[in-house]
Amino acid sequence: MTSASSHPSRGIILFAHGSRDPLWRRPMEAVAERVRSADSATPVRCAYLELTEPDLPTTAAELAALGVAEVTILPMFLGAGRHVREDLPALVAGLEQAHPGTRWLLQPPVGEHPRLLDLLADLAQGR
Amino acid sequence: MTSASSHPSRGIILFAHGSRDPLWRRPMEAVAERVRSADSATPVRCAYLELTEPDLPTTAAELAALGVAEVTILPMFLGAGRHVREDLPALVAGLEQAHPGTRWLLQPPVGEHPRLLDLLADLAQGR
Repeated sequence: MTSASSHPSRGIILFAHGSRDPLWRRPMEAVAERVRSADSATPVRCAYLELTEPDLPTTAAELAALGVAEVTILPMFLGAGRHVREDLPALVAGLEQAHPGTRWLLQPPVGEHPRLLDLLADLAQGR
Repeated sequence: MTSASSHPSRGIILFAHGSRDPLWRRPMEAVAERVRSADSATPVRCAYLELTEPDLPTTAAELAALGVAEVTILPMFLGAGRHVREDLPALVAGLEQAHPGTRWLLQPPVGEHPRLLDLLADLAQGR
């Protein structure tokens, strides 16, 4: 299903919380733009848990329809609460069932990356 | 009120959303620890908008009681929705009234820092 050379081999989903406020998503879209600029061959999408569209199942179905072999899902959450520890794994289990031809690679939330914590500490110090 | 040499001249508040989940705050505390390690003379506190304690007025009162001349408030929000654009400025206006001897320096949310967006794009690409 995924090995034809015309298909991208990998996709990326930036998964964020969502908000009623339409401006909220801007940083997520800015990150997606940066990834596209660096690597135009890899499809990149934003998806949201609630209040903002598209949701994860819709976005995942789009990427699966492109025939990508694997999709990295990066949770754009600073705090790792139940949304990340419970809601998201359940959603990904649903993707695995719905699209068994694609591997869904759920990453740790960005707030667990030491480089991000280092950078936030720098910003707090005005560096 | 703030010029005695025994007082720290500056404080830092990491201001985050908060969550019912007690694990949620860990990354915020990890950032505070990093700042303390880098600069033990500057008092650093976490404060939360809702669901997690302490709140901003409580934390701000603690720092004002230490006699700091100015306090940097860094909003630990990736998305800049109403919490950041409306709720937080209103809270800071309240701090200015309650503690006129301290300068409250509200920073842009971390999600607006280009270096953070660059790093998130790197993480999305597995770099």
